[in-house]
Amino acid sequence: MMHQQFQDCIDACNACADACDNCAAACLQEGHASEMARCIALNMDCAQVCRLSAALMARGSQFAAALCRVCADICRACAEECGKHSMDHCQRCAEACRRCADACARMAAA
Amino acid sequence: MMHQQFQDCIDACNACADACDNCAAACLQEGHASEMARCIALNMDCAQVCRLSAALMARGSQFAAALCRVCADICRACAEECGKHSMDHCQRCAEACRRCADACARMAAA
Amino acid sequence: MMHQQFQDCIDACNACADACDNCAAACLQEGHASEMARCIALNMDCAQVCRLSAALMARGSQFAAALCRVCADICRACAEECGKHSMDHCQRCAEACRRCADACARMAAA
Amino acid sequence: MMHQQFQDCIDACNACADACDNCAAACLQEGHASEMARCIALNMDCAQVCRLSAALMARGSQFAAALCRVCADICRACAEECGKHSMDHCQRCAEACRRCADACARMAAA
Repeated sequence: MMHQQFQDCIDACNACADACDNCAAACLQEGHASEMARCIALNMDCAQVCRLSAALMARGSQFAAALCRVCADICRACAEECGKHSMDHCQRCAEACRRCADACARMAAA
Repeated sequence: MMHQQFQDCIDACNACADACDNCAAACLQEGHASEMARCIALNMDCAQVCRLSAALMARGSQFAAALCRVCADICRACAEECGKHSMDHCQRCAEACRRCADACARMAAA
Repeated sequence: MMHQQFQDCIDACNACADACDNCAAACLQEGHASEMARCIALNMDCAQVCRLSAALMARGSQFAAALCRVCADICRACAEECGKHSMDHCQRCAEACRRCADACARMAAA
Repeated sequence: MMHQQFQDCIDACNACADACDNCAAACLQEGHASEMARCIALNMDCAQVCRLSAALMARGSQFAAALCRVCADICRACAEECGKHSMDHCQRCAEACRRCADACARMAAA
């Protein structure tokens, strides 16, 4: 399977997208959404770009590396923001974003 | 062009998705995001389902009607919520959601 | 974590989306794409609807069940088509689609 | 409306995505999909990246420009490939891709 080499990065993207979507919804519902506005906005971007990066890698697209480069930048920004907040969903999301940023940066450089 | 019959509904979905994404970001940034939490959450769902409905219609997918049925329900819920708020972006979004709900309901019934 | 209950179905959706995207690209590149046209078209629909279903479940969306119902139908159609073809990527995809159809049907009924 | 400045590029992305999804489905169904394999693969990437670029612009995302840069590259590759084929859907798609590539390149440079 020619795209199996991408599997680690695909898994990291899927896990990060799930964590970001979960974090966005939790941040909205906990009564202090205004303070979490930047976190929610980054979660939305990060989740969508991660899911599309996974799709392009799974298809072996020639543009997968270019999208992963952008994805790594978004993941890093989201990790930095989520990492500031003590809620479990934010801390889990920050960790998933850091793993995904690393995996995408490696993909983009390959 | 075989899928041209879907063009009105595709246009309504794209316009609704743009209005929902815009409304979500504006609601987040205006300092009262907690009160707008349900609006933002519905905007996120509605934007994504509208964009995917447009994609399936543009491909003439056999599942376009089934997805449009779900899309119509989401658009109606989003229109109802956005319609409660006086901000321009909410009112514009409510109007785009109503048009899209009608177009998707017609598509689903066709 | 309130959405943890959805985790099995989210995982099935992500795995199915990856298998469908992979199968679509492989079917396109193996020199007999015309015979695989229905397989590729279903792969495209299935991958995108699975990824969006995962997103809505991860956010605990009130529309997750409705989308999962549509997703289950698409997964079943894709499993049936892919199951007719002997290539490894088609057989793996058919299996991922069957698992995802079952998981989504349970979600939709919950 | 703060993101109105992006409206032209959003419109170009939506139109390009619709044309690419339409072209992919038509290329699959016309009996010579093997020869159109690269066209279909690029259509799939281009449609999805265009729809996500529209979403990020509509939200005024700080990552909209970076994604538009990737989108411009994909649009140019898709325009070049579609432009080689005489079918109406390919020629329409090539034209939509060229417009979108120009609009995204301007957005990325702004």
